[in-house]
Amino acid sequence: MSNVDKAEKKVASKKSAKKADAHIEGASQIGIEVRKEVDFSTWYTQVLKRSEMLEYYEEVSGCYIIRPLAYNIWQEIQNFFDAEIKKLGVEDTYFPMFVSQRQLEREKDHIEGFAAEVAWVTKAGSSNIENPVAIRPTSETVMYPYFAKWIRTYRDLPLKLNQWCNVVRWEFKNPQPFIRTREFLWQEGHTAHFTKEEADTEVYKILELYRQVYEDMLAVPVIRGIKSEKEKFAGGLYTTTLEGFIPTTGRGVQAATSHCLGQNFSKMFDIVIEDPKDAKKVHVWQNSWGISTRSIGVMVMIHGDNKGLVLPPRIAATQVIVIPCGITSKTTEDDKKLVESKVNDVVEELKSVGIKAKADLRENYSPGYKYNHWELKGVPIRLEIGPRDLQNQQSLMVRRDNGSKEPIPLADLVSRIPDTLKIIQKDMFERAKKVYDDHVKIVLKWEDFVSTLDGKNFVMIPWCEEVSCETSIKEKSTRHVTKEEAEDEKAPSMGAKSLCIPLEQPNDPPIVPGETECISCGKLAKRYALFGRSY
Amino acid sequence: MSNVDKAEKKVASKKSAKKADAHIEGASQIGIEVRKEVDFSTWYTQVLKRSEMLEYYEEVSGCYIIRPLAYNIWQEIQNFFDAEIKKLGVEDTYFPMFVSQRQLEREKDHIEGFAAEVAWVTKAGSSNIENPVAIRPTSETVMYPYFAKWIRTYRDLPLKLNQWCNVVRWEFKNPQPFIRTREFLWQEGHTAHFTKEEADTEVYKILELYRQVYEDMLAVPVIRGIKSEKEKFAGGLYTTTLEGFIPTTGRGVQAATSHCLGQNFSKMFDIVIEDPKDAKKVHVWQNSWGISTRSIGVMVMIHGDNKGLVLPPRIAATQVIVIPCGITSKTTEDDKKLVESKVNDVVEELKSVGIKAKADLRENYSPGYKYNHWELKGVPIRLEIGPRDLQNQQSLMVRRDNGSKEPIPLADLVSRIPDTLKIIQKDMFERAKKVYDDHVKIVLKWEDFVSTLDGKNFVMIPWCEEVSCETSIKEKSTRHVTKEEAEDEKAPSMGAKSLCIPLEQPNDPPIVPGETECISCGKLAKRYALFGRSY
Repeated sequence: MSNVDKAEKKVASKKSAKKADAHIEGASQIGIEVRKEVDFSTWYTQVLKRSEMLEYYEEVSGCYIIRPLAYNIWQEIQNFFDAEIKKLGVEDTYFPMFVSQRQLEREKDHIEGFAAEVAWVTKAGSSNIENPVAIRPTSETVMYPYFAKWIRTYRDLPLKLNQWCNVVRWEFKNPQPFIRTREFLWQEGHTAHFTKEEADTEVYKILELYRQVYEDMLAVPVIRGIKSEKEKFAGGLYTTTLEGFIPTTGRGVQAATSHCLGQNFSKMFDIVIEDPKDAKKVHVWQNSWGISTRSIGVMVMIHGDNKGLVLPPRIAATQVIVIPCGITSKTTEDDKKLVESKVNDVVEELKSVGIKAKADLRENYSPGYKYNHWELKGVPIRLEIGPRDLQNQQSLMVRRDNGSKEPIPLADLVSRIPDTLKIIQKDMFERAKKVYDDHVKIVLKWEDFVSTLDGKNFVMIPWCEEVSCETSIKEKSTRHVTKEEAEDEKAPSMGAKSLCIPLEQPNDPPIVPGETECISCGKLAKRYALFGRSY
Repeated sequence: MSNVDKAEKKVASKKSAKKADAHIEGASQIGIEVRKEVDFSTWYTQVLKRSEMLEYYEEVSGCYIIRPLAYNIWQEIQNFFDAEIKKLGVEDTYFPMFVSQRQLEREKDHIEGFAAEVAWVTKAGSSNIENPVAIRPTSETVMYPYFAKWIRTYRDLPLKLNQWCNVVRWEFKNPQPFIRTREFLWQEGHTAHFTKEEADTEVYKILELYRQVYEDMLAVPVIRGIKSEKEKFAGGLYTTTLEGFIPTTGRGVQAATSHCLGQNFSKMFDIVIEDPKDAKKVHVWQNSWGISTRSIGVMVMIHGDNKGLVLPPRIAATQVIVIPCGITSKTTEDDKKLVESKVNDVVEELKSVGIKAKADLRENYSPGYKYNHWELKGVPIRLEIGPRDLQNQQSLMVRRDNGSKEPIPLADLVSRIPDTLKIIQKDMFERAKKVYDDHVKIVLKWEDFVSTLDGKNFVMIPWCEEVSCETSIKEKSTRHVTKEEAEDEKAPSMGAKSLCIPLEQPNDPPIVPGETECISCGKLAKRYALFGRSY
């Protein structure tokens, strides 16, 4: 049975299994049929498919088709981020996607982190390939032999390369569109520096750019932090991360990571220069950093509602849809033409001030159908124009994000619409930020840990930062639930892991060195750490 | 032995084997050591590697690293082409790179054309995958099941999708950087139309855009034409093509193709709509079209010279390099600073009028070394500024393409440089065009065919257009040479194939229907066809 069939069947079976509460009464054929807050995973699938963001790929499970509405968002992210990293002196490149076994296994911790998910090409045509090749899960081992070749003196530093590409991680866990897929698109930056300080500085500059992508473009709030030893990048020195939060499920999602690899890879791959001061051999300091199409999924999960997608204006391919309305059998042909011509004029005027506006003049659809259609697709603003509006020289402006309606004089549209788009962008972020903030709970004794977690919250605790303690916390917070409950996602069986040690530490109460204890193991706490269940 | 070692060894062995004539006397360490006209394939490898366009990938043969200097050209092509197709209503998308065996084999002619080169993923981690998946060699069979799903009525037409991606064709022939590689980057457009006329129109619109990429951006002349039945796209109706010409070897290179697939795939994949006129089921008309990173290799082969790359200004990441010179041990520190500050000023002025200018103020290199360095990298214009130039308020402008030198008043740079860049672009194209034109020879009797071909020419002949005749021409023009001669590329063993039936037909002498005979088989000729040896 195909993925799609399974998804559809799941909807059907859930419905019959007394899931009627999930069903949205009177939902039109093109709309969403289940409530986000009741059956989140079916809702997510429906929103993605029906808005035409994504299609399930029936042939290979865990793979999905990124349709234009979603791919456009990826291109917006690419345009912004690529321009920013070029300002930092990063150059785009393209390395092969194939890597030999020998090369892949050169860094031991690294390969341990990826080996189970590596896809191998063993045949070409009908012949076996003598030395099978892996498809990159990430490109450290593909690139660094060439770093060793190209970096000869300190004058060759810094070397800053980036590539936009596909990678493959053949996971056997439940796939989830955008969030966990066997093939995905990302950029991977790989840089080499003379000093640790330079490398450190870059790690945080990139993290800041990722924050801008999430918060300023996608209106998705994130918490910046450092990964624990257990959760850091395999083979790296330390990992900085952005952590997102899906309020509906109370689960976290790793949004983007910027790693300092230290000198670990440069030692394995022999990337050395002579120190100009004393001619001693020095291993370079390296970073790698990536953001992927997962970002699109996080944005949909956070902002979508029971009518479908809600797109932040900055990444919406269509920001304003203009729809003629109020045309009945009594309307004269002349009046109808006047309305349509005004609709076109408004679109042109908005375009002339840089707004991505579009008219929906389709003949065979009612205004109501069109409203649903563009709501489903998440267009930030709808403008309605009918014969009566023409008399009053106005248009009704409807916001997708909060449903508010306001008549706007036609003459004011070119100033009001750009302003309103900015306000929507800001409002969407601030609402989501408030929800996130409200769900980060400081917990000071273990007894409150699991119940707080179960309330769909993140838990911020004074923590010892030890690997064994993290393992124990995961174990202690794992619930043993029935299979049905687990599928439900209401009572997830998974335990909590550390999401990050936030850069902005709470100070009420402060961690008192030598005094504050880890709430799990009782050893001394170093800093607050954020724990949660996560995708 | 790795590719690189082989290439280096080839250079070494050729040198020892009385290949001293290839060696360029006095070539600096960073320059090119063999002459393009004497040992083309070594020259090509050296230019690509030493200019830092490309690196051989030692791990997997037939794969190469596209370095920033080359990747930047690809991005320029992407920016231009993507904007143009969006004007035609094409939307960007991303389909998975994996395709199942069942799907891949649905169109019989198509799979026959690709089967031998398909790479198969059979393992993930240490487990075998139950149903091995192929990596796309092209995406017709990946996409068209979804065309069938999405196209329901004539209102869903035209459907116009495009993706920028990597594809894999595991060829066993000699690989050649950019020209024939196992993984390469391209765009593939896939569109569906209601009528054949619409599809036809688009095929030629896209071909025209490809012509603009080659002729207007890369300064590479091409001949537009239609492929023979033998050479057309596997499974398609007809293929239009751009054919390039490498004068040094006399060989042709297929530059880009725009296919009309007719209704063949829509029948196999059941992509049908109801005709709104009579409610009858109609299969849609489809096109597919692609241009790849091969274009970069063609440009290098045509314009490069014995000093290295020569980049057309429109695609050069650096258009103008400004180098301080004339600074000796007698120059005062103040004068040196004045020169350097003027160099920086000139760069800023040029940037302010949109020119990609850069200063080379490196301390440890002589002006001569820098000249060689930037010539190797193909920068279109070099400006030299020394103390004496400052006194005369001028700068020496040196053109990379023809070596001409001219002093330009500093005050005129912002007007003269943009003009000169345009002139260089035009001159490069026109010179290459003249060479191409001179090597297309009309041949009217078979006796002249092979000798004309051997003179490193294309051969234009009145032709019957039959598959059996094409096979016979190839056979008759194949030379049986020693292995050494074959490697030399001077006396290629390969026979000629039809490159295209040119859209612009010669008319002297005209083809007289019912009278003019095919020069190979004596049957009636239909049109002139272009034959040649090709990559």
